Amino acid sequence: MTSNHRTALEKVRLGVIGLGGRGSGLHGLLLNMDDVEVPAISDVYEDRMEKNAEAAYKKRGVRPNTYQDYRELLDKEDLDGVIIPSSWTSHAEIAIAAMESGKYAAVEVGGASSVQECWDLVRTSERTGKPCMMLENCCYGREEMTLLNMIKKGLFGEIIHCQGGYEHDLRHEVSHGLINRHYRFRNYQNRNGEVYPTHELGPIAKYLNINRGNRFLSLTSMSSKARGLHEYIVNTMGPEHPLASVQFTQGDIVTTMIKCAHGETVFLIHDTTLPRPYSRGGRVQGTKGIWMEDNQSIHFDGITPHEQWEPFKKYLEEYEHPLWKWYREEGVRGGHGGMDYLVLRAYVESIKNQTDTPIDVYDTATWMVITCLSEDSVAMGSMPVPIPDFTNGKWIDRKEPKPWKYSLDVIPETI
Amino acid sequence: MTSNHRTALEKVRLGVIGLGGRGSGLHGLLLNMDDVEVPAISDVYEDRMEKNAEAAYKKRGVRPNTYQDYRELLDKEDLDGVIIPSSWTSHAEIAIAAMESGKYAAVEVGGASSVQECWDLVRTSERTGKPCMMLENCCYGREEMTLLNMIKKGLFGEIIHCQGGYEHDLRHEVSHGLINRHYRFRNYQNRNGEVYPTHELGPIAKYLNINRGNRFLSLTSMSSKARGLHEYIVNTMGPEHPLASVQFTQGDIVTTMIKCAHGETVFLIHDTTLPRPYSRGGRVQGTKGIWMEDNQSIHFDGITPHEQWEPFKKYLEEYEHPLWKWYREEGVRGGHGGMDYLVLRAYVESIKNQTDTPIDVYDTATWMVITCLSEDSVAMGSMPVPIPDFTNGKWIDRKEPKPWKYSLDVIPETI
Repeated sequence: MTSNHRTALEKVRLGVIGLGGRGSGLHGLLLNMDDVEVPAISDVYEDRMEKNAEAAYKKRGVRPNTYQDYRELLDKEDLDGVIIPSSWTSHAEIAIAAMESGKYAAVEVGGASSVQECWDLVRTSERTGKPCMMLENCCYGREEMTLLNMIKKGLFGEIIHCQGGYEHDLRHEVSHGLINRHYRFRNYQNRNGEVYPTHELGPIAKYLNINRGNRFLSLTSMSSKARGLHEYIVNTMGPEHPLASVQFTQGDIVTTMIKCAHGETVFLIHDTTLPRPYSRGGRVQGTKGIWMEDNQSIHFDGITPHEQWEPFKKYLEEYEHPLWKWYREEGVRGGHGGMDYLVLRAYVESIKNQTDTPIDVYDTATWMVITCLSEDSVAMGSMPVPIPDFTNGKWIDRKEPKPWKYSLDVIPETI
Repeated sequence: MTSNHRTALEKVRLGVIGLGGRGSGLHGLLLNMDDVEVPAISDVYEDRMEKNAEAAYKKRGVRPNTYQDYRELLDKEDLDGVIIPSSWTSHAEIAIAAMESGKYAAVEVGGASSVQECWDLVRTSERTGKPCMMLENCCYGREEMTLLNMIKKGLFGEIIHCQGGYEHDLRHEVSHGLINRHYRFRNYQNRNGEVYPTHELGPIAKYLNINRGNRFLSLTSMSSKARGLHEYIVNTMGPEHPLASVQFTQGDIVTTMIKCAHGETVFLIHDTTLPRPYSRGGRVQGTKGIWMEDNQSIHFDGITPHEQWEPFKKYLEEYEHPLWKWYREEGVRGGHGGMDYLVLRAYVESIKNQTDTPIDVYDTATWMVITCLSEDSVAMGSMPVPIPDFTNGKWIDRKEPKPWKYSLDVIPETI
């Protein structure tokens, strides 16, 4: 069964497939949206489904249908879209099945395992006419949107170089992966590459107009030795603990350099198994200025005093994105400083308007593919590898979509 | 003529070849050292020599011999060593000639143009028994030496990843290269790579025991488009100025990733033609902690509160290197916060003791070669390129030199 709405919807019917920590959180956010119904949920673990079904019943007085097999959910339920916060390696497969069954697909962040599954996503979306949106919440972060606004207004001049990272000490969570079923635990025992690039790369791709007049051309990745997780396990669980003999393949630090069609460079760093405070390591550099996250500072040529930094805070207030101005007036809600809510709303409103999503299938494929390409590059001693053009040449002439509230390509004048 | 001293020298006789801004500065420092004489100087430009000869006469009452041809200086003068702050592309050639004429060679910082000239440096030093030291002042910076001390004491645990950069807005100096004969001006019109890696890479190489139990294996470099210098020229000199039509090949941002034999990774960034405050972009990461220059902070596992930074300043005081403790008591002198003086003294005292220099010919060659290899990598679309083992396998078993005041390999107990 597929939904056959053609005009704007009053209510959006969504399913959630994957109910780990992230899925449960998103489910909770959806339950707070008056124009959203969640009649069906799915997870391979019964306990997770039960917990979520109960939460839904408490909130809404209706128990959603539960499915251990997501294919059954897609088959039986009349839904407008599904949200897929499942394990990394199942995102593409489930999203493809969702689009095939006539639903808007939304995948949580995560990287691809092969180039082919990214092509499959793209071709399925093109054939079915159903969008596939990566729910990259950081694209809707207040700082990221302010920067997008400043970049579009030309404050940085011509953009030359961007940096970002996922720099998050996850040793505790990951080393308890046997207990908490953390997806990274098995990945870190087997893979080696930039497994989680999109929190920083999503916003950067929008800064650089990727797939709309620009594209990623090639990348090269390098991985350090893997020591952090093993040392943490030995120190906290003891050398005799069974986990102390687990071998990890994922290097502690994975760095990636990406070249763009118009000569910009992007540097990414994945850093999750060494002690450190959290950072997304942001940096934007153009011919007129530089922003850096780690010292929360900015420098503009001829504006900031020579050889000095000034606080980003000042600009954050002056150049706040109209969406965030509206959002703060309305009342910020949900996790991660409010951006989880915004990215979900962007998806919900795309469905309501029956338009494409602001992060479209080309964006989703382009961001996901970085992971498997970086694994290829690491495996080949940091050989550069080409990044596919999933638009097949259309990136050159793809028009900017019309400005709307949740656009990440054009800044709306008013909300 | 060569000097034939065998035992410790009371006075050291030095020549200076290359008297631009840097050479004049070093010459001035030498004139303030009681145990150093500078009987001969050389430069291709008469005006520079004249200025330096006059300064020497004013300071010491003796006018040094001047040579437009450095070969004549090496041939005629009885010197213990020569200091070579000449243009980048002449360092190796002059250092080789200096060692051939029986003198300790000291080259200013800068990169090589070919792998072969680095081998020639190494082979000449091995054959003549004369050291060749890169005067990498940053190795003697207070922060860098404190970090070296902390790393050797194991505070960071096992070192996994280091970063550094030369991030210095040089648009004014370089764009006036026709007037001020700035060496970068012609290089930036013709080369494209990591042309100036050693300020950050020198200290990092010492942190990582490069050439003493570890080595650099391979690198890959990526270069952005070149926009900053041209835009600066147009904006400050006007679009009709002859320089506005000059094409620059050197990308604004060049990033380089290096892999080490024991699995550590190093990231370098060269950033000199965009607006920004100065930074050497330092970062040291190990299994127990992280230091970052750009927020002047440190985090140690189990010591610093979870997810927080603490000021590096505290550690700078507690773990100050013994050389710097002594130095601050004696009185810091000379340029760049005192490190110019220390690196020169390290060279002078090596000559006085007739021992090898703390930055030896293998270090010098290994650091210089990064430049031409990064050019190769950029030219080949970021292909990884191997980094030669200039020790020919001796790095595996090379012993740490005995501790002394200026050592960069072992920390002396007392000065």
